[in-house]
Amino acid sequence: MSVNLNKRVAAQLLPVAGVVLGIAQANIKRENRKDLLVMQLSEGAQVAGVFTQNRFCAAPVIVAREHLAAAQGIRALVVNTGNANAGTGEQGLQDARTTCAALAGLLGCDAAQILPFSTGVIMEALPVAKIVAGLPAAVSNMVADNWADAAQAIMTTDLVAKAISQQVVVDGVTVTITGIAKGSGMIHPNMATMLGYIATDAAIAPAPLQAMVSSVANRSFNCITVDGDTSTNDSLMLIATGKTALPEVNVTGSPAYNALLEAVAEVAIYLAQAIVRDGEGATKFITLQVEGGKDEAECKRIGYAIAHSPLVKTAFFASDPNLGRILAAIGYAGVDDLEVAALQLYLDEVLVAENGGRAASYREEDGQRVMAQTDITIRVVLNRGAVNATLWTCDFSYDYVKINASYRS
Amino acid sequence: MSVNLNKRVAAQLLPVAGVVLGIAQANIKRENRKDLLVMQLSEGAQVAGVFTQNRFCAAPVIVAREHLAAAQGIRALVVNTGNANAGTGEQGLQDARTTCAALAGLLGCDAAQILPFSTGVIMEALPVAKIVAGLPAAVSNMVADNWADAAQAIMTTDLVAKAISQQVVVDGVTVTITGIAKGSGMIHPNMATMLGYIATDAAIAPAPLQAMVSSVANRSFNCITVDGDTSTNDSLMLIATGKTALPEVNVTGSPAYNALLEAVAEVAIYLAQAIVRDGEGATKFITLQVEGGKDEAECKRIGYAIAHSPLVKTAFFASDPNLGRILAAIGYAGVDDLEVAALQLYLDEVLVAENGGRAASYREEDGQRVMAQTDITIRVVLNRGAVNATLWTCDFSYDYVKINASYRS
Repeated sequence: MSVNLNKRVAAQLLPVAGVVLGIAQANIKRENRKDLLVMQLSEGAQVAGVFTQNRFCAAPVIVAREHLAAAQGIRALVVNTGNANAGTGEQGLQDARTTCAALAGLLGCDAAQILPFSTGVIMEALPVAKIVAGLPAAVSNMVADNWADAAQAIMTTDLVAKAISQQVVVDGVTVTITGIAKGSGMIHPNMATMLGYIATDAAIAPAPLQAMVSSVANRSFNCITVDGDTSTNDSLMLIATGKTALPEVNVTGSPAYNALLEAVAEVAIYLAQAIVRDGEGATKFITLQVEGGKDEAECKRIGYAIAHSPLVKTAFFASDPNLGRILAAIGYAGVDDLEVAALQLYLDEVLVAENGGRAASYREEDGQRVMAQTDITIRVVLNRGAVNATLWTCDFSYDYVKINASYRS
Repeated sequence: MSVNLNKRVAAQLLPVAGVVLGIAQANIKRENRKDLLVMQLSEGAQVAGVFTQNRFCAAPVIVAREHLAAAQGIRALVVNTGNANAGTGEQGLQDARTTCAALAGLLGCDAAQILPFSTGVIMEALPVAKIVAGLPAAVSNMVADNWADAAQAIMTTDLVAKAISQQVVVDGVTVTITGIAKGSGMIHPNMATMLGYIATDAAIAPAPLQAMVSSVANRSFNCITVDGDTSTNDSLMLIATGKTALPEVNVTGSPAYNALLEAVAEVAIYLAQAIVRDGEGATKFITLQVEGGKDEAECKRIGYAIAHSPLVKTAFFASDPNLGRILAAIGYAGVDDLEVAALQLYLDEVLVAENGGRAASYREEDGQRVMAQTDITIRVVLNRGAVNATLWTCDFSYDYVKINASYRS
């Protein structure tokens, strides 16, 4: 079964002044595919990012963190697919540094001004010679209007390229934001490692830029899950080139900051949802709204318990309203003082459970009707506080097993 | 694919003096199958148990806890399969009480002397009339030599009945222990709810009996996982009838207590492993040994991160030594100060990873050879403390999705 839950095609992508992108076929894992991306930034561009929390984080994550901390001004990003350079020890760090040095030589900057990223299989040595050999071709074709190819060049098991542009007018100035992402799960250590790159031509100082990317990540990529496996390589980068007439945003909370934050968040949420919609084997897109909790942590705990339950996910794959499985997941989410008789469970607008059991008004055919849809909202109303949280996930199908059982062959 | 990982047949089961078992076909979910079990205990028998921690625990769990707390002396247990009586609110509690009252009437005891258990689909009303109607037939065929039928009568999606007997000589007296369990996962809220019943003819006072069942559960049923879904109905009961010449064990830690503890633990570990070997869709039995941790909690956290990872489980299904996925799971297990360069990863005796990456001595064909086995040990040596933990799990196959996507149809 093949289902395309992504309704929007990555088209009409707008260039961002101050960013040029070049791609190459470096034969990293397979022949004849785009697998190497170089994004060059104009001088003065600011970059901030958030990275995976995995203790086995990949070598490029370590090097990218170092180079951001060095604060010499980032001039380029280099991304390869086909190999994650994770679980590769000292050699992996050397390979990431070699990649940066090679690109710096081509661009005439310092290696510490390059951020490296990798995605693909882990615990296998990075074919650094192939990457170094492919860099000149990527550099030679760098142009501003190349975001669609860039979105393709970072794919692994993704079925669709994920990219979006939007414009927002701030203080009378039109600001452009374009983002790309890859991932067929938030969190697949091996193949669907999540990478996201969002660029704007606004000028944003380092501190508010870092605040913005952290805030945006918490509202987008940190609210999705396919399988609960936290990647070794997850990275989200926000680039601000400062090529518009809008004055530099240098504090959080200002009207201009807030306007840009919302616009960037919209791009990030679109990209995050696109990853779930392209989740490995996914046939259903599920929105989880947990409402009326005491704090965000307990709302997310309950949401993730539902989103990670293989039993819930297989029931959704089967379009079977076997909804007691959702109650069970709520029950084991680890909210120790949860009063199960106080909560309500809805499937879209259908009240499924209350008073600790099936709602008197619930009819199986109503559940069946909603389960047959490809987009479904599960709503849990806890009635114990004022905090809400929303997560996005997908179902769990034969194809998930197939894709992940056959990956390296 | 159908694989029977259980190598031992439930045969040669020994009666336990003081326990008689009767079964019936009550047509609870399907016609013509054993689905109702009554175990009657002799007067003076002691019963202790541990139950699920799920906040949506089933009605029979609530009633069984109440009746154990009432301490009027338990005279019988009644177990139905086909319906879990969970997520059933007030009506579910009434149905569990009705079942107890009906059996008490037949046996001439008080309803508080009956422990009820249910397993099967949740959030559907218990067909209590069918159960009440089936009880007389179960009571009429109660005999001591009926453990094999009892193991069958509590199955849901289990492919094999799980039962074992053993004898141990304590202070010159031969003590018999017989146990049965059901479950095709530790933890399936809907269908493979874990139930376990172990009886011995030794005499054990209430306090040490409770200590023994808790200790045994922590070493057996609390060390397994199929899919990470904690059931609404999990229950493990330990029965001591006091029908041997061995004096009553009335303190923990005595030589007789320790001898019985080890013998009961051996039975429980066998049953727990049998559940994993019969895990839904399982084709591989995996032992997870996490060694050299600072405390048991971090060892179990790392073990469960590996055991719950869909990516690890699908790689084992495919016999693909894609072992970087194990490193990634270790990395996201939540042990914040973990030094990944300090640990070693072994597959059986093969050293796979050290110094943060692939071991220099590791050859793909060695990993492939171990992965082709049906019984595999993953060993993680943390080198940061003196504590070890062992867990058992299985792989994740097409059949898991199939079984759970089609359960109610």
